[in-house]
Amino acid sequence: MKTKYDVVLLGAGHSSTMLATILAGNNVNVLVLDKQEHPKFAIGESTIPRTSMMAKLMSVRYDIPELAQHAFFDAKASTTNGIKRNFGFVYHRAGQLQQPDEVLQALIPESYFGPESHLYRQDTDASMLFSAIRRGADVLQRAEIRAINTHSEGVELELVDGRQVRADYLVDGTGYQSLLAKKHELRVPADTLQTHSRTIFTHMIDVKPYESIEPERLRHDEMPRLWSQGTLHHIFDGGWLWVIPFDNHDKSLNRLCSVGLTFDTRAFPATGTDPEDEFNQFLAQHTDIASQFRDARRVREWTRTERLQFSSHKSIGERWCLMSHSAGFIDALFSRGLANTAMNINLLAERLIAAKRDGDYSTERFRSVEQLQQSLVSYNDRLVNCSFLSWKHYPLWDAWSRIWILGSFLDSLRLQSVYQAHERSGDKGVFERLDERRFAGSLCPGVEAFDHLFNACARCVEQAAAGECDADAAAQQILAMIEESNLAPPALALTAQPRRNDPVMGRQDMLTLASWIRRQAPDDIAAWYSH
Amino acid sequence: MKTKYDVVLLGAGHSSTMLATILAGNNVNVLVLDKQEHPKFAIGESTIPRTSMMAKLMSVRYDIPELAQHAFFDAKASTTNGIKRNFGFVYHRAGQLQQPDEVLQALIPESYFGPESHLYRQDTDASMLFSAIRRGADVLQRAEIRAINTHSEGVELELVDGRQVRADYLVDGTGYQSLLAKKHELRVPADTLQTHSRTIFTHMIDVKPYESIEPERLRHDEMPRLWSQGTLHHIFDGGWLWVIPFDNHDKSLNRLCSVGLTFDTRAFPATGTDPEDEFNQFLAQHTDIASQFRDARRVREWTRTERLQFSSHKSIGERWCLMSHSAGFIDALFSRGLANTAMNINLLAERLIAAKRDGDYSTERFRSVEQLQQSLVSYNDRLVNCSFLSWKHYPLWDAWSRIWILGSFLDSLRLQSVYQAHERSGDKGVFERLDERRFAGSLCPGVEAFDHLFNACARCVEQAAAGECDADAAAQQILAMIEESNLAPPALALTAQPRRNDPVMGRQDMLTLASWIRRQAPDDIAAWYSH
Repeated sequence: MKTKYDVVLLGAGHSSTMLATILAGNNVNVLVLDKQEHPKFAIGESTIPRTSMMAKLMSVRYDIPELAQHAFFDAKASTTNGIKRNFGFVYHRAGQLQQPDEVLQALIPESYFGPESHLYRQDTDASMLFSAIRRGADVLQRAEIRAINTHSEGVELELVDGRQVRADYLVDGTGYQSLLAKKHELRVPADTLQTHSRTIFTHMIDVKPYESIEPERLRHDEMPRLWSQGTLHHIFDGGWLWVIPFDNHDKSLNRLCSVGLTFDTRAFPATGTDPEDEFNQFLAQHTDIASQFRDARRVREWTRTERLQFSSHKSIGERWCLMSHSAGFIDALFSRGLANTAMNINLLAERLIAAKRDGDYSTERFRSVEQLQQSLVSYNDRLVNCSFLSWKHYPLWDAWSRIWILGSFLDSLRLQSVYQAHERSGDKGVFERLDERRFAGSLCPGVEAFDHLFNACARCVEQAAAGECDADAAAQQILAMIEESNLAPPALALTAQPRRNDPVMGRQDMLTLASWIRRQAPDDIAAWYSH
Repeated sequence: MKTKYDVVLLGAGHSSTMLATILAGNNVNVLVLDKQEHPKFAIGESTIPRTSMMAKLMSVRYDIPELAQHAFFDAKASTTNGIKRNFGFVYHRAGQLQQPDEVLQALIPESYFGPESHLYRQDTDASMLFSAIRRGADVLQRAEIRAINTHSEGVELELVDGRQVRADYLVDGTGYQSLLAKKHELRVPADTLQTHSRTIFTHMIDVKPYESIEPERLRHDEMPRLWSQGTLHHIFDGGWLWVIPFDNHDKSLNRLCSVGLTFDTRAFPATGTDPEDEFNQFLAQHTDIASQFRDARRVREWTRTERLQFSSHKSIGERWCLMSHSAGFIDALFSRGLANTAMNINLLAERLIAAKRDGDYSTERFRSVEQLQQSLVSYNDRLVNCSFLSWKHYPLWDAWSRIWILGSFLDSLRLQSVYQAHERSGDKGVFERLDERRFAGSLCPGVEAFDHLFNACARCVEQAAAGECDADAAAQQILAMIEESNLAPPALALTAQPRRNDPVMGRQDMLTLASWIRRQAPDDIAAWYSH
């Protein structure tokens, strides 16, 4: 450990070490401090195209080729990660058999982006740590901090063992327990957030593939992909259950399946029930889910959380910044954690590299990082809360989920267009498009028309939930607004009734999509391809 | 957790969970308790034929096929484990360049047994835990024990959270910190052991393959295998340094290399020096080793031990037993830890299954387990201490190391013969040969002539070290005794001068070996093939 660094990062988790890798590879002297040490258990295992695309884009933007190894699933390579070819959502009603029409399978557009992954975090996070070290980051584990002092001139840290270190800037990536959040009393009352959820989670073995459960009655063969080849969400009025298998491809040697049950605390307040009992009580109400877990056994104790949602009234200050999960969190639904963190890292890395270069770490230069952070929390809150609300009435979810599909799809196009623009021009200036400030936290940043649509549809869900309008009518209204928005490429067949569960984007579809972009898409989107 | 089990195991490490897997698969109700939880860091990463053969043999003996997955290296399967095709020993003198004649490469006999592994313990140990659970073991992690009561009728345990559990038998696999050892004051003064060593160890990245260092001067091309394809030992007067790479094959995604520097505390007493400084001071004295570490970086803090050696005056009692590393330990040299533990597990499993079946857990029934344990510690102590002593004078090591090669080779034959005898006859009775009580802890149990040779040669080393005889003469004496012993199959060319570094056992050699066994080997050995 040296006595002075440009940037000190607290926490040696995935996000801190990814940022440290980028900084260390770009002439910034960094120190990473962690109270514990690897290997570590972590959740946040399911990647989405934004996760992988951001890793791929940052690998080029910041000249860190090894970051691309963290993008997409490599079937040849990994014996510990699972493959994710789809998002599966299966709707359940307590005490009833599952209705096979009430399902959604949203496919990862592989022809464009490749499959996503279920990350075995104890290995991937260790590997990210090694990347940071290889790039020259200093890492000190088993290092407990006694005192932090930040001021306009810099940062001083003192460890419990007496060692002292100075830095020009401090990034706190220690999550909910953030030392800086405590020191500066940054947390805001959680009732400013709409979502109310808590979760119990663990790892299991011998969770059956859902498609092996009652195959004829549940008509699994109508699905484009096997449920087990993706992240499966069992959804119900009042919550959702994630099923993230690691053993779902030929090369896997990892028998695990990540399992988490998340409840809306307004419908299912915490009662102090033992998590195992609570899980079993839930299964007793849901026969088809129970079948999937008949032989399953837990391999670690349950982790039980309080209400998950928190946020901070600010996430930057003089010479310091909170990384995404230190500033706020909503819910694991839609697997947006790692992806949103990657956006945060991208922007923060750019700002820190510039600050080092210019010798200017003034707070104003990091304002956009805070804005992105606040915006991500805010959009994610509304996305997740509307999902919980929509689960009261299946058609409402059926409609609302299409907004999520549309936003996610457009975002994938957006990110892909940046990548292609750089490939064509070799101009790194195109990466500034990743730092988009308009609707920065939206499912698809920078597209005003999508933002309008998202808000209008969210209002429909919220009004229906409040009893201010009929839920079926709200669902119809959402579909009509999507249709009218001119935002949905015909190839997506997004407003088809019943929902089309075909592969969302085959190669042929990509051609019609290109044509739609050229001729019909809103200017925001067409502009992606004019660079 | 139930309120009553047949056997409770303390510690959810590799050994406990391997034993739990076997017991649970054989009608024994087991509970595994651990204060912490996986993933865990552990060393003991390098397997030897005994490790793999014991796993393979136990998989058949106890009908646990999945144990065989922990035997030998599977190049197709693992992206995290390293391959081990040889034991490499390179002798260094402080302040001098390495002399390329002072090296030993002992090959893993692959045609017979397959390559061995460098185990990425955070994954393999987790995987063994899952095996135990899959077999029906109950596992409780994050479980701290408040009180243990063992008596002639059984065992009672109380957890800190107030839960209580009873059992018929208690196995303590918590290692040096063993609760039972403390409770019953089992440790004996360490001066009853000959070896005096301490170690500092960590994981690194970017450790260079040793064969890339000064290839012409050091004549690496004369070696049958690449140094980096095995466990490399840099040895010197006063200690040794292990280099265990995980990145040494095409499929590896694991950049790590395990590194540990072990000192004879009589030559290098602990001084309180920071381990990083101590390591660098060592490298400063050893240019060729330093070259291998020029770009290397640590990915975790150093672990620093006190004197490693400890043992216990007993390892069994009324209704309890200490597993191997809870009862005693010598040194990681020759990678015998996991292998000796496997012998311990094999015997203990047999005894516990019988005890459950007979409803008789009386202490006398476990006497052989204690005898094996004491014998393993005692032989291992002499093996390791003589190695440290021999490093004062290279020819002495050159001779003494052949005893280790011979014993290890004969032991591989022994284990292979048991496997073959079962394959021929289908009779599980042959596995009782694994429970051999004569010279149970010897490099090659059950072979009296080898035991005599081992002891006679050890005396030569000890006398030379004590100045009671000339070291060169002692080395010559050892070679002469090997020659006269009639224990060394000619195919091994074990007494060749200079040492033959060819592949120890090609297919042709196996044929001449078979012929030697039939016609010339001592009766103890010939008897292996008469079953």
